[in-house]
Amino acid sequence: MFMRNCWYVAAWSSEIVAGKLVPRTLLNEKVLLYRDSTGQIVAIEDRCCHRGAPLALGRLEGDCVRCMYHGLLFDPSGKCVDVPTQVTIPPSLKIKSYAVAEADSLIWIWMGNQENADPAAIPGFEYLSKPEWHGIPGYLHYNANYLLITDNLADLVHIAYVHTNTLGGSEEYAREHVQSPLQKSADGFSLTKWHHNSDLPPFAAKVNSTLKKVDRWNSVHLKAPAFFYLESGFGPVGQDLKKDRTGVLEFRNFQAMTPETDKTTHFFWVYMHQETDNVDAISASLHDSILEAFHEDMIFIEQQQRVLDDDPDFQLKAIAADAPLLHLRWLIEKNIKAETAPRAALVSA
Amino acid sequence: MFMRNCWYVAAWSSEIVAGKLVPRTLLNEKVLLYRDSTGQIVAIEDRCCHRGAPLALGRLEGDCVRCMYHGLLFDPSGKCVDVPTQVTIPPSLKIKSYAVAEADSLIWIWMGNQENADPAAIPGFEYLSKPEWHGIPGYLHYNANYLLITDNLADLVHIAYVHTNTLGGSEEYAREHVQSPLQKSADGFSLTKWHHNSDLPPFAAKVNSTLKKVDRWNSVHLKAPAFFYLESGFGPVGQDLKKDRTGVLEFRNFQAMTPETDKTTHFFWVYMHQETDNVDAISASLHDSILEAFHEDMIFIEQQQRVLDDDPDFQLKAIAADAPLLHLRWLIEKNIKAETAPRAALVSA
Amino acid sequence: MFMRNCWYVAAWSSEIVAGKLVPRTLLNEKVLLYRDSTGQIVAIEDRCCHRGAPLALGRLEGDCVRCMYHGLLFDPSGKCVDVPTQVTIPPSLKIKSYAVAEADSLIWIWMGNQENADPAAIPGFEYLSKPEWHGIPGYLHYNANYLLITDNLADLVHIAYVHTNTLGGSEEYAREHVQSPLQKSADGFSLTKWHHNSDLPPFAAKVNSTLKKVDRWNSVHLKAPAFFYLESGFGPVGQDLKKDRTGVLEFRNFQAMTPETDKTTHFFWVYMHQETDNVDAISASLHDSILEAFHEDMIFIEQQQRVLDDDPDFQLKAIAADAPLLHLRWLIEKNIKAETAPRAALVSA
Repeated sequence: MFMRNCWYVAAWSSEIVAGKLVPRTLLNEKVLLYRDSTGQIVAIEDRCCHRGAPLALGRLEGDCVRCMYHGLLFDPSGKCVDVPTQVTIPPSLKIKSYAVAEADSLIWIWMGNQENADPAAIPGFEYLSKPEWHGIPGYLHYNANYLLITDNLADLVHIAYVHTNTLGGSEEYAREHVQSPLQKSADGFSLTKWHHNSDLPPFAAKVNSTLKKVDRWNSVHLKAPAFFYLESGFGPVGQDLKKDRTGVLEFRNFQAMTPETDKTTHFFWVYMHQETDNVDAISASLHDSILEAFHEDMIFIEQQQRVLDDDPDFQLKAIAADAPLLHLRWLIEKNIKAETAPRAALVSA
Repeated sequence: MFMRNCWYVAAWSSEIVAGKLVPRTLLNEKVLLYRDSTGQIVAIEDRCCHRGAPLALGRLEGDCVRCMYHGLLFDPSGKCVDVPTQVTIPPSLKIKSYAVAEADSLIWIWMGNQENADPAAIPGFEYLSKPEWHGIPGYLHYNANYLLITDNLADLVHIAYVHTNTLGGSEEYAREHVQSPLQKSADGFSLTKWHHNSDLPPFAAKVNSTLKKVDRWNSVHLKAPAFFYLESGFGPVGQDLKKDRTGVLEFRNFQAMTPETDKTTHFFWVYMHQETDNVDAISASLHDSILEAFHEDMIFIEQQQRVLDDDPDFQLKAIAADAPLLHLRWLIEKNIKAETAPRAALVSA
Repeated sequence: MFMRNCWYVAAWSSEIVAGKLVPRTLLNEKVLLYRDSTGQIVAIEDRCCHRGAPLALGRLEGDCVRCMYHGLLFDPSGKCVDVPTQVTIPPSLKIKSYAVAEADSLIWIWMGNQENADPAAIPGFEYLSKPEWHGIPGYLHYNANYLLITDNLADLVHIAYVHTNTLGGSEEYAREHVQSPLQKSADGFSLTKWHHNSDLPPFAAKVNSTLKKVDRWNSVHLKAPAFFYLESGFGPVGQDLKKDRTGVLEFRNFQAMTPETDKTTHFFWVYMHQETDNVDAISASLHDSILEAFHEDMIFIEQQQRVLDDDPDFQLKAIAADAPLLHLRWLIEKNIKAETAPRAALVSA
């Protein structure tokens, strides 16, 4: 069960090249993405309603896609507009079509009730569209449910243990941090974590040779179902970093987890900086460093999936630091229940 | 569920070499094929009744097969005739034996009630045994239910889309064809499809340099559960090809689909010609061309199986051109129901 | 379902190297094996109670293991003794711990009620600890339920068919043997099989050039759930081998089958001799010969598992020679029933 009446990331804009049919499974549904003759994104069911053949094996004809098994042609609304062997086409010959939007270099898709799709509701992360922030779009495929990834992101303590040699610095980070209260919102939460007088972590030291000992902060924003925004910075020890950003090294990080199936996930990410010299080299260095760290996470997260698969009766036991992740899971559950509640129940409520 | 009281192709004759034990799963049952001391084909269960060991790991002793785990010996009727460690052999020590027949270079097997096996009921395709028709026996293994293959064969329109560059010629074939009415019979159907003034398709052009523009016909015969016979020809445009075969290039095609399991299929085929020069080269050229086309089909058919597996609730929607395939599926269903009906029902009917 | 209130072999002692965390699934449970700071073996659950991460990805700290996902630390009793982000640790934060013992170069583990674990109940095979017996510890992984392996060991007739060219000598072994009555005991059975005037089998001939024709015996001891002890010997034909061991070549064989899952098994084994010259070369020759034979068994045993998986309705049919294996299976079933019987039933019984 997934939240459906919301936007998910279907792809990076750059993945959907003009003239190409791109099949992608999203929330267990087979979707075909392509650009129409004007460059607008189209998302239709990747399954011919006639004999089930994938339309990804088909042919783009203007704005439409022809199934190359028996020749049925579908327009962007999913309507069948040509059957080579017959003249009349019954309206039942149609496939699903999905609302899509292109924003912030991302393709967004609405998998729920199509009449509710509202482009104004597309989650925004302002740094994605600001020209002074640079980064390389990234993609990873996880053999794990998307919630195991949001769990990971909701507790930054794991940085100290999983990412000691990449993102994390010392284990003191886990123990001596100063964490802001969890700021809950209607669709997620925010929290900020400070760590004072720590070493500049390895990934940051690769792109900055000035800072050594630093005060650092991470401001995490998690939104249901699965968006992670991070503002982080490293500055001279003792400087009032909340007010004075002189000599401060700052990064912005966006991660979107889109369920592929119940046990696999599309993971879209970018790690951004605002340096002005060596922009591409710094982008590449950060991309490589963060990718290394993500592979450290992936080992744990995919193993968790296997552990849960092997023993469905296994009950996780919460610790105090789980409050954020439990809040996000609770929010998602609440939304799913609201979406799937019978109408009568809604009326009486 | 499969039709069982009927003949299936178990192998090409040439596959069952004297002295060799050949294991093959047919209709979900493990069967062992071999030749007895006189060269007659034997088919017994490939599973020792004692501890389940495959008899394919055993040893041929005259007409019998010895299990090489604990030494039990089985005769061609499936009866155990030796247990090394005991003198008396209870009649319950036996395995299944199947009626088999060798005809038209094929090994035929009856998987249902053995007392009903009637060699006279073996489907015949006269060209298989005529010396003037030449071809190379072929085999393919499909990761798909056999009905997805018969579906494919029952609608020749797919030639225009799937096989444009191999068998098909132009997409006009799909639209401008002249099709005879579907001729239904007790065990299948026939239909003939004409296409006038078309290009000689690539596979035929490789073996014939005389014909360019042609009138072409395909006469399809499909028999339940899964036999396909095709008579096809290409002749000069405008010539009365039904009467005058001068300069006509003709082919005969046999295909037998035998279920291996619910989701895999043995596919036996041969494509025949009656040229008299360069016989072997033409046989080889046709074999290669058709194989290329079968691999085009296989992509669609195996993908269909995956699509159906991924969503068992998916409902196919028929078009007018599906009438033949729906007739064949209906026939097979009817036969399966008759085979599995309780006796009382049969009597009262 | 497995017997649980008994000892199983978890590993050879030499597999658990100081400083290393060794994950191993036993009876469907994920176990982590390591040595504490004094070299004592510890076995705890290989699954953090917090988020399910494998502790095998963790870090050994003295006698404890730290989960490297969020830093929880567990002591050898399974108690959580550190959570980096909180001061108070609720007693519910704990994982399983298993009784273990090291004896005869093996690590033994008790998977059932821990309060019942009794080191005195560890199955002993005296030759494992006698310095005059030499052999190389071996391990194999089987894709089969452990009972298919004990079945194999319970009927030595298979030696004649499966191991003709390795262990077995001739098929006369199967027919002309003299077998002692099955000696049943509370936890298994013993039996001795004699074969007179046979050829020294190939594996023995490789390490002994004196004997040609021999009288041979195999004394098998099988103990529930899955221990096999074999005493075997080869001596001059006609000599009273029960009394006079002059010129006799003797071997001792130990095999322990520990269920990994319902369909996979850890197989620990050693084949021992007491020669005094070329000790290591003879050990290596015997190891290689027996391994070759085990691979002959493995083909049958893993195929049996597949046959049973493919058709859960398949019923094995017993022959007279199955009496020993049926006795062992009956014993195991009886023990499992006793272990899983509700307490009330036990009281009323």
